[in-house]
Amino acid sequence: MSHPLFERHKPLLDQALAAIAARGYWSAFPESPSPKVYGEGAAEAGKAAFDALLNKPFPMQLPGSQGTVGAEMSPYGIPLGISYPKVDLDQLFAAIARAEPAWRKAGPEAWVGVALEILTRINKRSFELAHAVMHTTGQAFVMSFQAGCPHAQDRGLEAIAYAWDELRRIPAKAYWEKPQGKNEPLKMEKHYRIVPRGIALVIGCNTFPTWNGYPGMFASLATGNAVIVKPHPNAILPLAITVQVAREVLAEAGFDPNIVTLVAHAAGDDTAQKLSLRPEVKLIDFTGSTANGEWLEKNARQAQVYTEKAGVNQIVVDSAADLKGVARNVAFSLALYTGQMCTAPQNIYVPRDGIATAEGHLSFDQVAQALAEGVQKLLGDPARAVEILGAVVNDGVARRIDAARALGPVVLDSQTLAHPQFPQATIRTPLLVKLEAKDDAKYLKEWFGPIGFVIATDGTAQSLDIARRAAKEHGALTLAVYSTDPKVIADAIAVAEDAGVALSINLTGAVFVNQSAAFSDFHGTGANPAANASLTDAAFVANRFRVVQHRMHVSA
Amino acid sequence: MSHPLFERHKPLLDQALAAIAARGYWSAFPESPSPKVYGEGAAEAGKAAFDALLNKPFPMQLPGSQGTVGAEMSPYGIPLGISYPKVDLDQLFAAIARAEPAWRKAGPEAWVGVALEILTRINKRSFELAHAVMHTTGQAFVMSFQAGCPHAQDRGLEAIAYAWDELRRIPAKAYWEKPQGKNEPLKMEKHYRIVPRGIALVIGCNTFPTWNGYPGMFASLATGNAVIVKPHPNAILPLAITVQVAREVLAEAGFDPNIVTLVAHAAGDDTAQKLSLRPEVKLIDFTGSTANGEWLEKNARQAQVYTEKAGVNQIVVDSAADLKGVARNVAFSLALYTGQMCTAPQNIYVPRDGIATAEGHLSFDQVAQALAEGVQKLLGDPARAVEILGAVVNDGVARRIDAARALGPVVLDSQTLAHPQFPQATIRTPLLVKLEAKDDAKYLKEWFGPIGFVIATDGTAQSLDIARRAAKEHGALTLAVYSTDPKVIADAIAVAEDAGVALSINLTGAVFVNQSAAFSDFHGTGANPAANASLTDAAFVANRFRVVQHRMHVSA
Repeated sequence: MSHPLFERHKPLLDQALAAIAARGYWSAFPESPSPKVYGEGAAEAGKAAFDALLNKPFPMQLPGSQGTVGAEMSPYGIPLGISYPKVDLDQLFAAIARAEPAWRKAGPEAWVGVALEILTRINKRSFELAHAVMHTTGQAFVMSFQAGCPHAQDRGLEAIAYAWDELRRIPAKAYWEKPQGKNEPLKMEKHYRIVPRGIALVIGCNTFPTWNGYPGMFASLATGNAVIVKPHPNAILPLAITVQVAREVLAEAGFDPNIVTLVAHAAGDDTAQKLSLRPEVKLIDFTGSTANGEWLEKNARQAQVYTEKAGVNQIVVDSAADLKGVARNVAFSLALYTGQMCTAPQNIYVPRDGIATAEGHLSFDQVAQALAEGVQKLLGDPARAVEILGAVVNDGVARRIDAARALGPVVLDSQTLAHPQFPQATIRTPLLVKLEAKDDAKYLKEWFGPIGFVIATDGTAQSLDIARRAAKEHGALTLAVYSTDPKVIADAIAVAEDAGVALSINLTGAVFVNQSAAFSDFHGTGANPAANASLTDAAFVANRFRVVQHRMHVSA
Repeated sequence: MSHPLFERHKPLLDQALAAIAARGYWSAFPESPSPKVYGEGAAEAGKAAFDALLNKPFPMQLPGSQGTVGAEMSPYGIPLGISYPKVDLDQLFAAIARAEPAWRKAGPEAWVGVALEILTRINKRSFELAHAVMHTTGQAFVMSFQAGCPHAQDRGLEAIAYAWDELRRIPAKAYWEKPQGKNEPLKMEKHYRIVPRGIALVIGCNTFPTWNGYPGMFASLATGNAVIVKPHPNAILPLAITVQVAREVLAEAGFDPNIVTLVAHAAGDDTAQKLSLRPEVKLIDFTGSTANGEWLEKNARQAQVYTEKAGVNQIVVDSAADLKGVARNVAFSLALYTGQMCTAPQNIYVPRDGIATAEGHLSFDQVAQALAEGVQKLLGDPARAVEILGAVVNDGVARRIDAARALGPVVLDSQTLAHPQFPQATIRTPLLVKLEAKDDAKYLKEWFGPIGFVIATDGTAQSLDIARRAAKEHGALTLAVYSTDPKVIADAIAVAEDAGVALSINLTGAVFVNQSAAFSDFHGTGANPAANASLTDAAFVANRFRVVQHRMHVSA
């Protein structure tokens, strides 16, 4: 039964299994882009490999190819000029159907072994992938490397570990002997076969094609499903490289590479809908807008649908021992990747009568000002600022900044910076606007981008009430609280558990509310409208396969 | 953290956990109704307890009671005369909302401990429950006892064991320390709280109120959800007793009994729909018709919906070493509880050129005749026959027998028997009708009841093809094959795995295709239209709770 790739990666898998059980710090893929870790020349070779991909057809043969597609424009202002095969869906599905039987039969150890081999090979292409992530998402290079490569690979490994943890608990067979009093017992042998669901569709997003795409992709692959990857039209390359690696590994392991395929398409066409409604598609992993996610949940009823959608992330400021630390930490969360993260904070609730701090009582305006200064200090040096901000991913972000500016008094205006290397890039700093608690029609929706509202409330009790309601009704992936009062912390924990949102308490150092660590932090809970699943837990994997048994009498 | 009821039942839970891991034979609750097992006088006391319930209001106080409801008519001809509280749904949900916070906070060990205590107390009322099952479902007494009590209790325990197996893998907290090169490491403490989904609704069926109801009920309760039990209007009593025990245990353990409530209602009203669409209801377990199950899947989108619906169960007869054994076994499966089981066989495919047997070649008609004789022999003694058949649960079954009789040549007609004790009961023996493979419009749907079609095919290859298509398109919980040819067995296994249906091979002894053993047989696969879930596996429990974390820096 065992598979050589399973044996090869068993030590890695065992470490990952220990990590998901303990949930302390662990990482399989080093986040440091240092030559000491990834080897001398790895950075340069990765850059060269990326450059070699530009302005030509991407090297991938897919069944049913009919012409090409692809018009990715780097948020840094460079058209990538890469074309991808455009596939005919009927021919694609026919080819996948031919590939499936041998893959289904190969069994859990082959699925998991192949998935692990793919991940470790992807890791070797991290520098190339980092440039691909940078020039499709607009993330700065170091973030593209860390979040887009090792962190995403860790998330993929975590999904494989959860999958295996479920798969391994189903025995391949059992001997069943039922006593019959004085008569001979009944004796049966039972065989339990793991059967994948069918075809899994991964719908990628523009901002985190790998980090958000890998959990579903590897969870489905490790449970025996064929996977179709449908990238966002402006973030194809990172997933194309991923699919390329997967197909190489599959072919080398003697499987039909069409177990993993890529469907690139043009922006605005109906490829996503067509794919989602195919009867063969039994699993869908989606990251994107609430409208599209809800459309899938409602319409793709032949499939198990896992969605991560929009939400309203919030910070409750009650009191602070170290307001400068608060401001520094919040500023980074607002600025990182121009706030274009599903986990970035938006609403910051502060009592209108001000808060107690180690430096004494501060008024609402002083707190708002401190937050603004935190951002200014963080981004004071434009050369350093662009390495935090990255580039604006699309015009919608810039439009929302302008619209948000009109909502209330501006505490800190958004600045336009010039990128020293990429003059075409749009770089924007965070906007902070003051609102009143009663303005909930303004702030109780997602303003994706570097937009923060400092909201005056009657006090922390009201702040928590609003936070609870917002998370329950509009969804939230993160909630943060700052307080020196244990009672307030306890109340915030109760609100978080009621609203199903992860809570970060008094972050003033180098951990940020919008960061979620594989093997330790559950990303999303599935318990509020921002996501119907968590990355990753047992529920995320257990329904990607079924068990089919057969039984017969035996004499022994 | 631990709870006294958890400690009390830990040995039982540990055995159940070992059983679901090994999936050999194990049972917690003895199936023998013998006084040696359940105690001298237990049978008589149970009967007396049942009799004492008749013709009066059922002793249960529920919030929002407004009058009563209940018109159960025993299939054995006795009106039960029991009335149940009729509850106002708004008041009920308000009362549950008041009960939930303390229960949610109690945590996994309390939930599991309370659930186990409920089950073991239910076991002590097995004789009383057996009469309740008998006089609502029409099952004969021994089956009512076994399937309705210990087997159902085992299924409930299995669900609790799977739930705990998932719950126990989430650590309550973790220490996370991330190295920072030469700097101080980042140090955090993370807490993971198990949060139930909300309110769980169990929609009971007429024929197996406890066996089909307990898995969802105990899976939801053990994961911290409040449970509303909505019985079928003609099978309220078994679930009312169950809810009564649950409420007693909850109250004794210091919880609000409204964590488990009963919503009895009149046949034909819209209570099920109203309950199913309540926003508070986040989990629904349903057993019943395809139309109602699909309505729930489509409309109750605020909830996770687990459905067991109709299907077409099939037997492929290819060849036989022991045709008498085949006939005896199949006859029992057709006759048991008048075929009113979701697992009972319906379509029996036999090559029209006949089959090879140990006694030489037998023609199609000889095989059909042998099956008919098997039924006649089994049911030859009317006094014994009624203990296998039980009573017809409703008029629909009798009407279907009459309709099916007109579909083709009758091999064995359905007889009407008189029950020696219950002259008002409708007792029907199986009908066997000959069909041709091309008559698929007739046999490719569920004919719930003691209706078997002996279908002439071009050969076993066609039999298997039809079986595959029927299971994939119309659903199936069971498939059986009889063959002496290892190639045919292998083909049947492949068909079963492709169509997602449990396969029984060459059953000629005292194990029957329509029986499914807790801790060993997965009932349903979730991989064909007959059910979207299995009773019970990890996927059945893992989505009934979520994990919500909070994290903070620590100095140590």
